[in-house]
Amino acid sequence: PGAPISAEQARREQELTDRVVASFANTPGNPRLKYLMETFVKHAHAFVREVRLTEQEWNLWIDFLTKAGHITDDRRQEFVLLSDVLGISMQTIAVNNEAYRDATEATVFGPFFVDDAPLIENGGDIAGGAPGEPSWVEGTVTDTDGTPIPGARIEVWEADDEGLYDVQHTEEQQVYGRAHLFSDEHGGYRFWGLTPTPYPIPNDGPVGKLLDAVGRSPYRAAHLHFMVVAEGYRTLVTHIFVEGDPQLERGDSVFGVKDSLIKTFSRHEAGEPTPDGRQLPPDRSWSSVRFDIVLAPQGA
Amino acid sequence: PGAPISAEQARREQELTDRVVASFANTPGNPRLKYLMETFVKHAHAFVREVRLTEQEWNLWIDFLTKAGHITDDRRQEFVLLSDVLGISMQTIAVNNEAYRDATEATVFGPFFVDDAPLIENGGDIAGGAPGEPSWVEGTVTDTDGTPIPGARIEVWEADDEGLYDVQHTEEQQVYGRAHLFSDEHGGYRFWGLTPTPYPIPNDGPVGKLLDAVGRSPYRAAHLHFMVVAEGYRTLVTHIFVEGDPQLERGDSVFGVKDSLIKTFSRHEAGEPTPDGRQLPPDRSWSSVRFDIVLAPQGA
Ligand SMILES: [Cu+2]
Ligand SMILES: [Fe+3]
Ligand SMILES: [Fe+3]
Repeated sequence: PGAPISAEQARREQELTDRVVASFANTPGNPRLKYLMETFVKHAHAFVREVRLTEQEWNLWIDFLTKAGHITDDRRQEFVLLSDVLGISMQTIAVNNEAYRDATEATVFGPFFVDDAPLIENGGDIAGGAPGEPSWVEGTVTDTDGTPIPGARIEVWEADDEGLYDVQHTEEQQVYGRAHLFSDEHGGYRFWGLTPTPYPIPNDGPVGKLLDAVGRSPYRAAHLHFMVVAEGYRTLVTHIFVEGDPQLERGDSVFGVKDSLIKTFSRHEAGEPTPDGRQLPPDRSWSSVRFDIVLAPQGA
Repeated sequence: PGAPISAEQARREQELTDRVVASFANTPGNPRLKYLMETFVKHAHAFVREVRLTEQEWNLWIDFLTKAGHITDDRRQEFVLLSDVLGISMQTIAVNNEAYRDATEATVFGPFFVDDAPLIENGGDIAGGAPGEPSWVEGTVTDTDGTPIPGARIEVWEADDEGLYDVQHTEEQQVYGRAHLFSDEHGGYRFWGLTPTPYPIPNDGPVGKLLDAVGRSPYRAAHLHFMVVAEGYRTLVTHIFVEGDPQLERGDSVFGVKDSLIKTFSRHEAGEPTPDGRQLPPDRSWSSVRFDIVLAPQGA
């Protein structure tokens, strides 16, 4: 947009960028920091020059960061939200989890993981009394040659059917919707969880205002979180998504969706026998899903 | 740095960037915002991909912004400082003040301007009792054809010889080191100020830590601020710098220096007669400088 700039103007702008880049030349003992700062400056200046940023727009951006800083505290992280809704978090995940054969793809970690979630037996229930439709989840953990990985630590966590994680309830201290289990000697795992439901990211702050202004939904596509840790393998942080979830069409607000992570949650009418013979309430429908997890080797 | 990535990995990363860019497609009624967000995302993702940002580095950046947010209040603006020390403020000035013939170059506004600084007569004193070496400043205001511009409003402000602006003294409410005057019927102006001295930007926060880590000085080169407003002309915000100031070699912490803005402050021994016959204390040396101001037309 706008008229092309003169050669003299382009020279002045480039000279400024070069001068700023050169200012990091004497970074003591940290070549990586030097490289990060130089490269950050190049892209930031390229942005300002490309869009011909006005001083008013620059002021709005400063004001946005200031407001984000002031809403951020121990429970709320607006800068992470900003990184999330601009796909910067997801891109960081992508560059740190390079494609390796058919290894399961990674996605965003999210803010709701908790250390020391309860241990359950294979086949146990992670819901812990949280409201929602029961969902039977099963699969295997293998390497990229199909060899089973026994004893892999599988952390799973999810929101209840109101779209809230246990830690979002400020009143109650009850732990629910999260647990860890270990794959069995054949690499198999299975547990009862809840059919995932979509939920919005916190949208009462500047990031919410930004999403509004650009006509975007704050909702995340429905998902169930996994983290899988096994000795000798790259730790996998991922979700599975629900085939047919209308939010997949509207777009996941943090860009966490990968086609390979969309799974078929089969619907089962109330009364249909469950895989492990569990007796559900007579009017309770349920779902089931298969998720086979493939781990890349450490350092891949 | 690092091994080249696979074609499949590059495809996944590009697909993610494309998906985030596409998410702004339905921005309602604000094509400029849409364009800004799309372009910002492209450069931010290009940065993450180019440096292969680690998750630990991403965490440090989030932590940096959080700390910057928490130190920012009505008197302290760490995000502006960050923009300043990365040359982003100066680049924004540059794109909004395009080179136009021999019009005087602009530089950073800085945080210390105050509206309603006292009016002085041409030849008056802006120091207001601030400590420092008196400096006689004179010049003309003309257009780029050399035609004088009478009645231009000239705002000037500067730090005292301890490197502090009046507004940085939290105790006293005294106004000093700032004033405004108008060019006379020949476009001429003249006033007494102080020979400028270098001062550091506030460096007890995260930006100061960053400057330390990259081995950079927080000092600004000594300068005297000008803002010149005249009907029909582009408002000029600039400084003049002091030829021979050693900080010019070390680098101005906010990249405000332009060669064309470095001026010769001539030294005068105590007792040498002053241009306007002012009697200075008998042991008081002084300086003098000429700064001819050339304004670009409005909209240039
Ligand atoms: Cu870029
Ligand atoms: Fe989640
Ligand atoms: Fe200043």
